[in-house]
Amino acid sequence: MSEEAVISPEKIDALYERLDKDAEASGYHLNPDREFTRGLVEGLLINEERYGYRACPCRLATGEKQQDLDIICPCDYRDPDLVDWGACYCALYVSDEVLEGKQEVQPVPERRPPEGQRARKAARAPAPGGEPALPVWRCRVCGYLCAREHPPGVCPICKAKRERFERFW
Amino acid sequence: MSEEAVISPEKIDALYERLDKDAEASGYHLNPDREFTRGLVEGLLINEERYGYRACPCRLATGEKQQDLDIICPCDYRDPDLVDWGACYCALYVSDEVLEGKQEVQPVPERRPPEGQRARKAARAPAPGGEPALPVWRCRVCGYLCAREHPPGVCPICKAKRERFERFW
Amino acid sequence: MSEEAVISPEKIDALYERLDKDAEASGYHLNPDREFTRGLVEGLLINEERYGYRACPCRLATGEKQQDLDIICPCDYRDPDLVDWGACYCALYVSDEVLEGKQEVQPVPERRPPEGQRARKAARAPAPGGEPALPVWRCRVCGYLCAREHPPGVCPICKAKRERFERFW
Repeated sequence: MSEEAVISPEKIDALYERLDKDAEASGYHLNPDREFTRGLVEGLLINEERYGYRACPCRLATGEKQQDLDIICPCDYRDPDLVDWGACYCALYVSDEVLEGKQEVQPVPERRPPEGQRARKAARAPAPGGEPALPVWRCRVCGYLCAREHPPGVCPICKAKRERFERFW
Repeated sequence: MSEEAVISPEKIDALYERLDKDAEASGYHLNPDREFTRGLVEGLLINEERYGYRACPCRLATGEKQQDLDIICPCDYRDPDLVDWGACYCALYVSDEVLEGKQEVQPVPERRPPEGQRARKAARAPAPGGEPALPVWRCRVCGYLCAREHPPGVCPICKAKRERFERFW
Repeated sequence: MSEEAVISPEKIDALYERLDKDAEASGYHLNPDREFTRGLVEGLLINEERYGYRACPCRLATGEKQQDLDIICPCDYRDPDLVDWGACYCALYVSDEVLEGKQEVQPVPERRPPEGQRARKAARAPAPGGEPALPVWRCRVCGYLCAREHPPGVCPICKAKRERFERFW
């Protein structure tokens, strides 16, 4: 449609540093292959210019923010993909195990449901006193609570590893 | 009463840097007007010398810690004020939208209840199985849970924006 | 069995810096006695070489990860010990009060149950609608939730102090 946006190397580096810092602070990791990762960061910035938000650089966004919400980076699928495959769909983020060389990055199948089935699953508990729609995990070290299919690779608060989490609810 | 405390510029800068670092790590932002913000930080240090705690520099503290607990900075009202007005009462903290120039800082009305009505509202759920007194929000990206009137501007763990939160309970 | 592992000063410094950064980001503090603390960090690295995980340097590990899980550093007992004694069992971590010189580090009694009684207490609520096995605390400033015997010394998200927490559940 329009000419391809040109993103300056300084802008790419600035976002790279920001994402890296944010990731490390909470127990996530950018892919250590810096050139590969800079390419994805550039893709995020191109999407930001194009759509007004940082849609996933490896998926086709519609340009309608409400419909793309689940694939704004970090996408809704990153964390389960890190658990199952050691990387997110783009391999922008990798797990501890991959970073430490204990696991290979594997091709990550698309977890996003096809369009018709993408109705945002309500995670809210249906009624007071009922079970929540997702398990709640507790870090045995610091008491951090989160609601997701599986506990995170490391606790974002105290950096204890996954095996220190227990089902709380 | 006593002579005004004199706070050294080094002490102001040290606290400024600490508050800035803590804020950025969790998705908060100090007001980018550095001289204005340094003035508020000086106020915090003066209050710390005067009262023994960093009471809000824009409100009148009693000097009784238990009565001032809700206005020790960051005050109990900062986060709802960031949601509604883009800044806290002092404008020491500003929202993402203000920082990015998408919103103007507005005069922030006093949200603190008058003294007689300041009984600390119990947020505790009244009975097992009952609804909690405040909604619990879940970040759809990382599963972070928090209990507050509205979700935060960005997730303090994974930095996803407010629209990625859903009501969990 | 094997020769004592020799850990290079560079490796000790690297882990020291990492632990210090992680601690400060979440409201924890390493013991400010740097030489003492480096000794403990060396102990962690020796245990990592010996067992494959960073077992507590002040306790006897079995070498069976499942049995030592509660004493992998940070151990399950650090946070309650910080509340009660101002330091963890090793004094690798100290509380705010100790760091600010308001409290002395005290000898920390062993909180870990003896082997036969070490069955991992299930913290999970026994039934939907029942009370959780541990209290849930809420930071009145930012809404952070955690499940532990007592609230943390400072909120890991907004750095509000312990007295700003309230019982939420």
